[in-house]
Amino acid sequence: MSQLGPAVGARSIDAAITELKALLGARVNDSAAVREHHSHGESYHVPAPPDVVCFPHTTEEVAGILKLSAKYQVPIVPFGAGTSLEGHVHAIKGGISIDLREMNRILRVSAEDLDATVEAGVTRLQLHKALRNKGLMFSVDPGADCTIGGMTATRASGTTAVRYGTMRETVVLADGGVIKTGTRARKSSAGYDLTRLFVGSEGTLCVITEITVRLHPLPEAVSAAVCAFESMQGAVETVIATIQLGVPVARIELLDETQLDAVNRYSHTTYPVAPTLFFEFHSDSERHVADQVETVQAIAAERGGRGFQWATRPEDREKLWKARHDSLYAALALRPGGRAMVTDVCVPISRLAECIVETMKDHQGASFPVALVGHAGDGNFHLNCILNPDSRVELDEAVRLNERMVVRALAMGGTCTGEHGVGSGKMKFLDAEHGPALEVMRTIKRALDPDNRMNPGKMVEI
Amino acid sequence: MSQLGPAVGARSIDAAITELKALLGARVNDSAAVREHHSHGESYHVPAPPDVVCFPHTTEEVAGILKLSAKYQVPIVPFGAGTSLEGHVHAIKGGISIDLREMNRILRVSAEDLDATVEAGVTRLQLHKALRNKGLMFSVDPGADCTIGGMTATRASGTTAVRYGTMRETVVLADGGVIKTGTRARKSSAGYDLTRLFVGSEGTLCVITEITVRLHPLPEAVSAAVCAFESMQGAVETVIATIQLGVPVARIELLDETQLDAVNRYSHTTYPVAPTLFFEFHSDSERHVADQVETVQAIAAERGGRGFQWATRPEDREKLWKARHDSLYAALALRPGGRAMVTDVCVPISRLAECIVETMKDHQGASFPVALVGHAGDGNFHLNCILNPDSRVELDEAVRLNERMVVRALAMGGTCTGEHGVGSGKMKFLDAEHGPALEVMRTIKRALDPDNRMNPGKMVEI
Repeated sequence: MSQLGPAVGARSIDAAITELKALLGARVNDSAAVREHHSHGESYHVPAPPDVVCFPHTTEEVAGILKLSAKYQVPIVPFGAGTSLEGHVHAIKGGISIDLREMNRILRVSAEDLDATVEAGVTRLQLHKALRNKGLMFSVDPGADCTIGGMTATRASGTTAVRYGTMRETVVLADGGVIKTGTRARKSSAGYDLTRLFVGSEGTLCVITEITVRLHPLPEAVSAAVCAFESMQGAVETVIATIQLGVPVARIELLDETQLDAVNRYSHTTYPVAPTLFFEFHSDSERHVADQVETVQAIAAERGGRGFQWATRPEDREKLWKARHDSLYAALALRPGGRAMVTDVCVPISRLAECIVETMKDHQGASFPVALVGHAGDGNFHLNCILNPDSRVELDEAVRLNERMVVRALAMGGTCTGEHGVGSGKMKFLDAEHGPALEVMRTIKRALDPDNRMNPGKMVEI
Repeated sequence: MSQLGPAVGARSIDAAITELKALLGARVNDSAAVREHHSHGESYHVPAPPDVVCFPHTTEEVAGILKLSAKYQVPIVPFGAGTSLEGHVHAIKGGISIDLREMNRILRVSAEDLDATVEAGVTRLQLHKALRNKGLMFSVDPGADCTIGGMTATRASGTTAVRYGTMRETVVLADGGVIKTGTRARKSSAGYDLTRLFVGSEGTLCVITEITVRLHPLPEAVSAAVCAFESMQGAVETVIATIQLGVPVARIELLDETQLDAVNRYSHTTYPVAPTLFFEFHSDSERHVADQVETVQAIAAERGGRGFQWATRPEDREKLWKARHDSLYAALALRPGGRAMVTDVCVPISRLAECIVETMKDHQGASFPVALVGHAGDGNFHLNCILNPDSRVELDEAVRLNERMVVRALAMGGTCTGEHGVGSGKMKFLDAEHGPALEVMRTIKRALDPDNRMNPGKMVEI
């Protein structure tokens, strides 16, 4: 259990705030409004405000904050764009919220090495914009305009199959020490892979302040397609066959009927209301993109795919993918005034259809709309549950639905979260998922954060 | 420093051997011949025999060995195919060598999920053979017929760009506890990434006994090509431009004049003696392979590439790649009776030409043949130094050459090893490469192996 009580001692935090103000001046804020803003992400978890919020501009300033955290034994919670879905940024033990959004410089872009180094507060769209005129792209896309630091800390991946985009990090440790993980070489076998240990560590081992990410050339040729299916099974079998044939599809997204209907209403599209796949194809060659589309169309037709529509014109592709990207807003529009609880599991793709069909059966008759959307190529899917924000009953029902879905995913050899992270929301499932490996995680947590000051109460309890 | 002395106490090891024999019977061997065989890999490091060698058949037996290691405070050293190049398998503190080659079952292959689970002693070629009739391939290829366990433990990658093929491991910890890292889902953000922490940990944190690896469909279309260049600079610029244009080349290998000359002599080929690139192109479409070849040929022609030859017939491709694969034997044939010292660094690709040119200048006038071969797309290259095995003077000269190359690579933002690992050979460079991050690695080592019994004297000294 934590060595810290449920709240930080008033004297410690007051003394820490005094020293923080000496360090950062006006970039330390303990007003009620700012604390409230930093008390939650976009999830259903009960908000928990920090005692104070800091807005550092440099890694050295973050190190200074961590040294004060150590001196006064005050917890820290890193904060990015606030798009967390599992309670990562809630200051459940109080302390210092470190808002990294003012660390938003793109430090270096190399077209030769296909990498970029950014500060943690740079957002995904900010990086996209900076790269576009260089013919490059950063392909990890979790949907929201989250910060690169937040994506790294939660191992968010999203609709693109290209994962593990992180090559190197600058991080601040619990004692204020600063280290760089790895070099700028594209591969290394020199020592323990700290880069990937810290990716997904959710602020519980360190604060990530700079990230070097892999870039990719903008593809010469892009096409998109959408196809409705007679059954969920047929849609998933199409995904499996496509991957087995080695068609290098850039994205494959799966939507159920409810989600598709919501998309049609929200985005004024007229797709058939059925289980549907959205595809994006990239290549260095126009002919190859056409070949990919043709192959996938044939695969789909054999598996109940109907009305395969494809789009190569940029405006058509953008419309199609905007409809997919807006799927959460579309689901929310099913119930004006509603609030989303968004869940996430991932299973071996051979079990995906079964897992989805059972999950859909389980939420038939739910008191609220439930829409399903998935990154089908990864076996990863989400439920968008649109709840009455004032109804404790509905929330409890959604939580139970989520729990049954996680238990089902684990029983099928899957994981309790494919890309949202653990935060506080998924902690209770880690024992079932990891068994004795969880104790190894605790051992690592204790070794690197013996005082349990780094985002305490998240990921693993020590 | 290690808590163990330079050798294990005679009484401890005798008692351990007695109990090991009770556990494993005839699969415990302390004969001089078997100990000698387990005293070295394929490197120049001074052999160091273990006190005893065990040949377990199951994870549970490995756990039993680790429990005896704990009980008698005797070190363990995992052993695979013995192809290590940096002294990983030398029992420099004595103790128990755990030879995993009898754990060689392929436990599961899934064409739907594109993964396979194998025991650590399965070799790369054994897995290839088992997959071929299923239309699948395991694409990580370090050249030697190493074990999958050894490749995982050293983060070996080789000539294929597809890395991080490891999804999940079963490992035995220092106290004999057995854990599984991760699930069978293709992605997860549920907790610290123990899978990748253990990949490349070289037996210093755990013994890896089972590995789940990613598979890929055998490509529908394959082509290969070879092209000589007027300069090393032109060859490297061709690689950079190819990657920047998004041509998804499966392999790009670089050979210098000396290596090319050796290949011609050994493999009876007649390639021009010049800096040379070997390419392999894969696709799901014949036309796309042809497009790739055409694009790369044009890129090469603009950068001093001459006599671009391509091969689509399987026998021609195989001849070409066999020549590349045999490059170490070819280099050895430059000096009958010679012994190779093979080195390895990796730099950002933007610095690759400069690093290679400076390194080649540095070994002009060496007392022995030096041939260069590289995985150019990664910025990774090797020197094959062919030494008189009886000459201490030549070995010292080669060691100094290697040291200067590593220092040069680090100064260019690179790493001391791209794929061979640290072992004992590269330990002295980790401080320069990692700075204070090395202490984080030591903290992790101390936390997971407090007695320093897991392959002591390798990777990090605690």
